[in-house]
Amino acid sequence: MKAVVYRGPRRVAVEQVADPTIETATDAVVRITTTNICGSDLHMYEGRTAVEEGTVLGHENLGVVEAVGDAVGRITVGDRVSVPFNITCGTCRNCVAGWTSYCTRTNPTEGVDGAAYGYANMGPYPGGQAEYLRVPYADFNLLELPPGDAHENDFTMLSDIFPTGWHGVQLSGMQPGDRVAVFGAGPVGLLAAHSAMIRGASQVFVVDKERDRLDLAVKIGATPVDFSTADPVDQIMDATDGIGVDRGVEAVGYQAHDPSGQEHPELVLDNLVKTVRSTGGIGVVGVYVPQDPGAATDQAKHGRIAFDYGTFFTKGQTMGTGQCPVKRYNRQLRDLIITGHATPSFLVSHELPLDDAATGYERFDNRDSGWTKVLLRPAA
Amino acid sequence: MKAVVYRGPRRVAVEQVADPTIETATDAVVRITTTNICGSDLHMYEGRTAVEEGTVLGHENLGVVEAVGDAVGRITVGDRVSVPFNITCGTCRNCVAGWTSYCTRTNPTEGVDGAAYGYANMGPYPGGQAEYLRVPYADFNLLELPPGDAHENDFTMLSDIFPTGWHGVQLSGMQPGDRVAVFGAGPVGLLAAHSAMIRGASQVFVVDKERDRLDLAVKIGATPVDFSTADPVDQIMDATDGIGVDRGVEAVGYQAHDPSGQEHPELVLDNLVKTVRSTGGIGVVGVYVPQDPGAATDQAKHGRIAFDYGTFFTKGQTMGTGQCPVKRYNRQLRDLIITGHATPSFLVSHELPLDDAATGYERFDNRDSGWTKVLLRPAA
Amino acid sequence: MKAVVYRGPRRVAVEQVADPTIETATDAVVRITTTNICGSDLHMYEGRTAVEEGTVLGHENLGVVEAVGDAVGRITVGDRVSVPFNITCGTCRNCVAGWTSYCTRTNPTEGVDGAAYGYANMGPYPGGQAEYLRVPYADFNLLELPPGDAHENDFTMLSDIFPTGWHGVQLSGMQPGDRVAVFGAGPVGLLAAHSAMIRGASQVFVVDKERDRLDLAVKIGATPVDFSTADPVDQIMDATDGIGVDRGVEAVGYQAHDPSGQEHPELVLDNLVKTVRSTGGIGVVGVYVPQDPGAATDQAKHGRIAFDYGTFFTKGQTMGTGQCPVKRYNRQLRDLIITGHATPSFLVSHELPLDDAATGYERFDNRDSGWTKVLLRPAA
Amino acid sequence: MKAVVYRGPRRVAVEQVADPTIETATDAVVRITTTNICGSDLHMYEGRTAVEEGTVLGHENLGVVEAVGDAVGRITVGDRVSVPFNITCGTCRNCVAGWTSYCTRTNPTEGVDGAAYGYANMGPYPGGQAEYLRVPYADFNLLELPPGDAHENDFTMLSDIFPTGWHGVQLSGMQPGDRVAVFGAGPVGLLAAHSAMIRGASQVFVVDKERDRLDLAVKIGATPVDFSTADPVDQIMDATDGIGVDRGVEAVGYQAHDPSGQEHPELVLDNLVKTVRSTGGIGVVGVYVPQDPGAATDQAKHGRIAFDYGTFFTKGQTMGTGQCPVKRYNRQLRDLIITGHATPSFLVSHELPLDDAATGYERFDNRDSGWTKVLLRPAA
Repeated sequence: MKAVVYRGPRRVAVEQVADPTIETATDAVVRITTTNICGSDLHMYEGRTAVEEGTVLGHENLGVVEAVGDAVGRITVGDRVSVPFNITCGTCRNCVAGWTSYCTRTNPTEGVDGAAYGYANMGPYPGGQAEYLRVPYADFNLLELPPGDAHENDFTMLSDIFPTGWHGVQLSGMQPGDRVAVFGAGPVGLLAAHSAMIRGASQVFVVDKERDRLDLAVKIGATPVDFSTADPVDQIMDATDGIGVDRGVEAVGYQAHDPSGQEHPELVLDNLVKTVRSTGGIGVVGVYVPQDPGAATDQAKHGRIAFDYGTFFTKGQTMGTGQCPVKRYNRQLRDLIITGHATPSFLVSHELPLDDAATGYERFDNRDSGWTKVLLRPAA
Repeated sequence: MKAVVYRGPRRVAVEQVADPTIETATDAVVRITTTNICGSDLHMYEGRTAVEEGTVLGHENLGVVEAVGDAVGRITVGDRVSVPFNITCGTCRNCVAGWTSYCTRTNPTEGVDGAAYGYANMGPYPGGQAEYLRVPYADFNLLELPPGDAHENDFTMLSDIFPTGWHGVQLSGMQPGDRVAVFGAGPVGLLAAHSAMIRGASQVFVVDKERDRLDLAVKIGATPVDFSTADPVDQIMDATDGIGVDRGVEAVGYQAHDPSGQEHPELVLDNLVKTVRSTGGIGVVGVYVPQDPGAATDQAKHGRIAFDYGTFFTKGQTMGTGQCPVKRYNRQLRDLIITGHATPSFLVSHELPLDDAATGYERFDNRDSGWTKVLLRPAA
Repeated sequence: MKAVVYRGPRRVAVEQVADPTIETATDAVVRITTTNICGSDLHMYEGRTAVEEGTVLGHENLGVVEAVGDAVGRITVGDRVSVPFNITCGTCRNCVAGWTSYCTRTNPTEGVDGAAYGYANMGPYPGGQAEYLRVPYADFNLLELPPGDAHENDFTMLSDIFPTGWHGVQLSGMQPGDRVAVFGAGPVGLLAAHSAMIRGASQVFVVDKERDRLDLAVKIGATPVDFSTADPVDQIMDATDGIGVDRGVEAVGYQAHDPSGQEHPELVLDNLVKTVRSTGGIGVVGVYVPQDPGAATDQAKHGRIAFDYGTFFTKGQTMGTGQCPVKRYNRQLRDLIITGHATPSFLVSHELPLDDAATGYERFDNRDSGWTKVLLRPAA
Repeated sequence: MKAVVYRGPRRVAVEQVADPTIETATDAVVRITTTNICGSDLHMYEGRTAVEEGTVLGHENLGVVEAVGDAVGRITVGDRVSVPFNITCGTCRNCVAGWTSYCTRTNPTEGVDGAAYGYANMGPYPGGQAEYLRVPYADFNLLELPPGDAHENDFTMLSDIFPTGWHGVQLSGMQPGDRVAVFGAGPVGLLAAHSAMIRGASQVFVVDKERDRLDLAVKIGATPVDFSTADPVDQIMDATDGIGVDRGVEAVGYQAHDPSGQEHPELVLDNLVKTVRSTGGIGVVGVYVPQDPGAATDQAKHGRIAFDYGTFFTKGQTMGTGQCPVKRYNRQLRDLIITGHATPSFLVSHELPLDDAATGYERFDNRDSGWTKVLLRPAA
């Protein structure tokens, strides 16, 4: 079959690879109909991770079940399904507690809980930017969708970024009526904003400096904050009578830049601590890493982020972090899509044949204006 | 009346000051029967705060209502009461939400939510290491106790450190059956351990290096971890089959020391991040401050604590922080004391007349062996 | 001043009564700008309660602060305020826990927790269908609103029915993405539906037989279920692939009628038990009473409702009940109104001068078509 | 192998039946070391259910894994395991949400969610009062225990009644410091009381009329209430200054008897409504059924229980019901047993060889004094 293969920094190629098969009685094979390029794919693309050359990429996958193992009973061949990016056993302590993003069994890497498709350090699982994908523990992992092709561009957000944005809001402790500030208007940030509004936020600020992304924030009813024009903290405090917001979402990660383009890994955390009111909460889904050899300072190289912890404590704030357990939310989000209350497809900018994956990666990695979210179609 | 007055670094004196009176219709005046010296009093005693000379100290107060204002109705003269250290209005948004430690009205200091008796930066309220204390918003703030003098040494822990230890456990997200690590076996840490056990922890580790404190931990059923003999993280990982604990409580604060006595404000946070399992939670009641002119590094001077945030995120941990809203817990803790399920008096080491306050401060500040917790009796 | 006075079954009159005054230092007097007739006012109007002749009615009140007592500090003269229907002390155990609907101090009636304005059995407090209203514990009870008259018809729903509808949803345990069935399309039921949608329900069914009310349900995006045309349980099961809804809200109460007009107090509970899926939840804000002398059966006379409890247990359902603690929600709902995410005024059908109160009562009590919600204006 | 077989009303026999085998790749076979007679086994024993003659009984099972299917990976042969009474798929919506007691896939009975071993209406699964037991979905269902035979009599309570008692407390909404009333001092009621104390109740009342059971309640620190000597509501109200308890647990079920021995299915619910304070919660784990042909009244025959619903609503109480999802709690309870904080074996009165099962059933069914809980040992 055809698949998108990592071939070294800033090089991906669509190549022929072996078709996946049922390896265990609990497996399924899914024929991919849509697979997205994720912002986190770019970390690998840029060569900043330990991912090996030859790896098939892709962890945002949607398709139709082509084959199932003998012990698969809930899911059947022909089901249209969303594949969560987390690969989970469904029976370990973390999975049972709903923390599928921290499965203790599927990732053989010592000391790491949680696995994913086509991803550095997340286990030996090929990705789904391909014609077919093997899915372990299919009955547990797959989410069934209505047959046909309705909502294809909405449903394809269920594998990662819509639940991840939702999780950021959840980790912040948001309650209906709250005011929320989302830092970062990339796909995850925009879907965090969309999530907050669906859940009854009274006002959602979205902080970024890219005009096209801020325009999308406006389109979904959020209040844009352009940090290239003025201090975003000042802007939000002014708009909230000096009180600040109730909750904040971090959707940027350790590669945060100031308006001049300089990297400051503590910048967004500092802004959140200042912006969120006393007793408020912060949800962090932007990625931070324990080791970042390319970082500017010795501290940052070892994942040490010297943010304003004293104020964090003095204001009595809380913080929740980490990768999203997709399965905790994807059924509910699917239902909101079906009834028209959620439309995460608003951020799709490009739909390409799988063969054009290299172009998609390059333009998305360049942050070319308007390249917000790229979908790949293996059958196109 | 007599009161303990701050007279500069390492100097307190028992002096005559004016009796407090009813100033507002919602006030009460309480005759103090027991008032404790708190570990946080020592910050002021040591001269590391902005507290003014002449201030009456003392925020851990217990006594009997001597007088009430015209608008006080729930509390009446003669009631035996515990006085929470937080001074709260009961009607602002934070108070109504149960966050009395972040009252937005009682502290006139710009930008600071929350007030307390006899405390630096926490508003102009004299403390209760005295014969009498004025209590604002008495109906809201005072907790009624059974008459008489039973449980005096248990009830006196209700004003601050027992709820504060309990809050640390609450912020950690502890559930019954969890394993918990408490860093710091001072009074708050020991009462956090006591709290965790009352709430159904399966095992509680207490980390310290002082033998007398670790002995108290053993006495209440906890597992002592002496960090002066070996790395506490290794000890806890060994005792948990390499899994770590579910929850951690920080009861040390920014003045954490390594075994050699060197100050490392990030040390305890690092140890918690390592010790707590993926998806686990950390409750921080040890104090961190936004400005610490006496700190060793420039970062620490501005409250920036460069702990291992990358691992914190990678493990998907959560963190809750801040001063305890005493009123959220003190009624329940009172009832547990009355029925014998809680006995926080186990850590009382000394009961002195108020006149001996200076001795109490000096010995407690020296961390003299066995001086775990000092009570003062104005009537003795 | 002028006020609406109860003068016996189906008789109310606008009469001159004494102006309210500041009686206690914690009181305020509010000049009423809008006051609504509530469905529960009709119980008194119809003479089915113990309310005394001469009582001033009205517990849904909105206005401007005219005077405050000496101990009132948070609220000041001139503030525009919503007055929650619950009269609460703010300092008893239930108030402190957020259960202001069960204040243990404000209602002198033996054995009853909770007080209200102008209401049978809820204490000796005159209502607000008048030019002025005395409000006890003003700092705690009053909710401040933006000055002016914007959103007057939305804000007037904050005193009772919008929070009450919201509370029904809360008691049901609804989570975003859930399907919800609301039984009863009166004002509370319609606002429960509005609440569920604001909080991210994927679908909301509203069950009634009045066409004008079902039309309003459609207008706010809900799915109407007309129980006069077919069994509502069948209709909902058909629309949910035989699974049923996740949550149900009871907004009818003990005077439930079948399509033929016969009273069956267990009817709606039975339908909810059948309609809600296993493990689902039911929120009950429709009123049930311990004594109902006018009921059809001996059991019902004593508040005994023989619904299908065996199935309720077998399906593992939960049930929450009771009057709404308005203060727990009204701030958040106010903010949702201000930012345009909530518009409870959609159900206002009539705005009358206070002088026309008798007409308003009569037409509303007749359930005349289109008389959904009546507002009274003392100044008109 | 030998197994306890139901042979009609009040007749069980130990007979030879076929050994269970691995039927599906996800199965395990467990060699039973201890299996208990449950109070709910007596419903079948007494012939009041639809259970078929020839059924092997027993749903409280403990043992060692003898064989596993090819898709079983977490559990291995030789593991000592507790077998939850619920048979669950681990992948349906209810299982994923933690409601394993309402699995939608394992019970083929139309319209019933949830399956169990050797139980009427709970699917075609033989019980474990036998030498061996087949366990479906073994990786999900089995709880691993420390090897050996330590804590055997404690661990054997993990399959049903300890988690069920715990669940009753959970459904009541109990928080630390609360006062709790448990109605019924059978095994489930006593373990509900034990659970409440482990979780930090300040006081636990246990209501029954059997002296030996009340003595056990005293032994674990609860306050006994003998309803044969005086109205239990009066006794509890007197002991709580007329306030009542915060939470109540129903551990009796529809066959409640008054002191004279008359059956009143609404009796315990009425007492709970009276005993629990306003805003309090009630957890119901005593069994109620939709159809009870042997009931005294027409209503009760159809599961209609006419309790005092009007007061339930007026007090704003909540109620949670249903069978326990054992897996939600058994890991934590296991850990509490291992560290000595839970000792549910206190209620074991008899340990018999499997061959003596008939005697065990007869004496337990007679409620013979001292026959509190009977364990069967297949290997004895």
